[in-house]
Amino acid sequence: MRLSELETPCLVLDREKLARNIAALHVRLRGLGVNLRPHGKTAKCIDAVRLALEGPSGGITVSTLKEAEYYFDHGIVDMIYAVGVAPVKLDRIAALIGRGAHLSVILDSMAQARLLAERARAHDLVIPALIELDCDGHRSGVVPDDPLLTEIGRFLHTQKHTALAGVLTHAGESYNCRSIEAIQALADTEREAAVKSAEALRRLGLPCPIVSVGSTPTANFARDLSGVTEVRAGVFMFYDLVMAGLGVCAADDIALSVLASVIGHQERKGWIITDAGWMALSRDRGTAFQAIDQGYGLVGDMTGRPLGDLIVTGVSQEHGIVAGRAGKPTPAPSLEVGAKVRIFPNHACATGAMHDRYQVVDGEDKVVAVWSRINGW
Amino acid sequence: MRLSELETPCLVLDREKLARNIAALHVRLRGLGVNLRPHGKTAKCIDAVRLALEGPSGGITVSTLKEAEYYFDHGIVDMIYAVGVAPVKLDRIAALIGRGAHLSVILDSMAQARLLAERARAHDLVIPALIELDCDGHRSGVVPDDPLLTEIGRFLHTQKHTALAGVLTHAGESYNCRSIEAIQALADTEREAAVKSAEALRRLGLPCPIVSVGSTPTANFARDLSGVTEVRAGVFMFYDLVMAGLGVCAADDIALSVLASVIGHQERKGWIITDAGWMALSRDRGTAFQAIDQGYGLVGDMTGRPLGDLIVTGVSQEHGIVAGRAGKPTPAPSLEVGAKVRIFPNHACATGAMHDRYQVVDGEDKVVAVWSRINGW
Repeated sequence: MRLSELETPCLVLDREKLARNIAALHVRLRGLGVNLRPHGKTAKCIDAVRLALEGPSGGITVSTLKEAEYYFDHGIVDMIYAVGVAPVKLDRIAALIGRGAHLSVILDSMAQARLLAERARAHDLVIPALIELDCDGHRSGVVPDDPLLTEIGRFLHTQKHTALAGVLTHAGESYNCRSIEAIQALADTEREAAVKSAEALRRLGLPCPIVSVGSTPTANFARDLSGVTEVRAGVFMFYDLVMAGLGVCAADDIALSVLASVIGHQERKGWIITDAGWMALSRDRGTAFQAIDQGYGLVGDMTGRPLGDLIVTGVSQEHGIVAGRAGKPTPAPSLEVGAKVRIFPNHACATGAMHDRYQVVDGEDKVVAVWSRINGW
Repeated sequence: MRLSELETPCLVLDREKLARNIAALHVRLRGLGVNLRPHGKTAKCIDAVRLALEGPSGGITVSTLKEAEYYFDHGIVDMIYAVGVAPVKLDRIAALIGRGAHLSVILDSMAQARLLAERARAHDLVIPALIELDCDGHRSGVVPDDPLLTEIGRFLHTQKHTALAGVLTHAGESYNCRSIEAIQALADTEREAAVKSAEALRRLGLPCPIVSVGSTPTANFARDLSGVTEVRAGVFMFYDLVMAGLGVCAADDIALSVLASVIGHQERKGWIITDAGWMALSRDRGTAFQAIDQGYGLVGDMTGRPLGDLIVTGVSQEHGIVAGRAGKPTPAPSLEVGAKVRIFPNHACATGAMHDRYQVVDGEDKVVAVWSRINGW
């Protein structure tokens, strides 16, 4: 099958760029002396994640138990489920550990630690947990100087059915940085939060084998990761317009796009209508607050080259409105009804989530593979 | 299974409200003398759409060919595929018609009409088409006084392998109305565009059996639908916060919610963290420009009653931040780790699209059915 013959909308993945993006981060982190623990939440696809596991690896990260079960069924054993654990999920976690998965959970409260110990005891197994740290006020976690850190640590270590696996933090605010210098500074903060917390635990004689940090921006700009044992990142495999806007990648590094057909024109307005609406692109507007607002996606030709200033300026469920970036009509001579375009997404995780498979290309028009992906919980 | 025992996040559908919403629109449109052609794109679920087909009906509307195939496989024959047809989809449309579906397409250009005639000839069958009209500048369609209208009409009628099935328009701008009066006025405009175009075609001796209008807001506030043969609407089955903000429904009419678990707190900020992020809620921010911004959703207790001013103020992939509407910390005494909440969505279509099934309840805690739903193309 040729790319140009595919039904639209569909999700296209450039394997050459994927491999290049993966290799680049591995080389970078090897230079800093830490392992990469790729996040399986962006691709949700064993074929892509296997590529990311080439080279030194400390296992993977997952964001749902469905991912954990899926990757485990495909032979990946070492996983961190990096969303604060909900009590209702503990039996399913225990079942997966019972089957042989080396699955760790994360938590940031004594309430979670107690419930974890209780359910692990009921299942008569040990569930390892990392303490989630808040390094940047972004979302969840214990701040490093909160006495709660060592209280949870001591509890996890001393209970028979839990184990203290380490500490973990995510500099989610890196997505909102305005400069490379700001990302570098946040990478320092992220490292310091993790290393300082690990030291606090170790001073009390508690173990802290894993010191885990990560976000795609900080992974790309951290200058020193001493004391850190692993970096987590997911978006780096595909990259996207938000990452390009941050300066973390070039637009040409983006491996993911949505293939769409032109289905109409509103000539008075300079609009081209395509069949890729929010159902195909997602509602993500991550570039809205960046220097260049890419609307709902940047429009390229079939080889992936941007078509001037064309972006997706509006979406409904199954319609996309394509127009010039400044809202000014853009002549689009070759975009007749039936012509196809490739739309590069704001946010690879969100656009990927709207699809159940990747049409894999190798930089050429030929589809070399179809990789399925999962969604749901 | 009880609702309170379900794993989170998951999608909950209140069958009592669903039935009430469906009955109310049927009664209203019967009073105006027109059929309801429910849109299958919101529910994407045969069980829900079957309920909407009780009472007088002129078939259904679909937004993808996957919906058309799915509903046809479940016994629904009469369908309008209401997205301007892309050439690459014509063979699949022909296959479905060949299997016995009464499927019509829509189009707004001579280029589409010619490609339709060509592929229909190749398959040796007749593909009916409606001409899409632009009544409000929202998206696609021919404006009623454009000579293109009758040019397309004549072509579809005179070609051996196409048929002119009628005209169709959608007042998508009704979602942006600021008052009931504005919705009523737009409903008039929507009707006039359709009826005027049907008359223009008929004056030339061309047939126009279907005169189709519709959006959930205009369907609810149209006062006169004379000359119209059917109304299309989808969101009305479930309703959502955008519709409540428009005054189209009450918040208590919303049949769809996402069940979530509390997984943490950031007490200094007054944040409650849940496991329902954008992957469960969608990125839709449809209430952002309404009088009351509901963030990424309104938070209710397990019976669906709003918990004071709690909304989802921020989301990441698998995390939701719940806080008071004005950003002020809200005491939430009973929301311990593991507590469950029901989050009402901005946009039912978008939130539904993130899930593959509905946990159906009947106003009580008991799950009375699990209905699967489809996604994709």
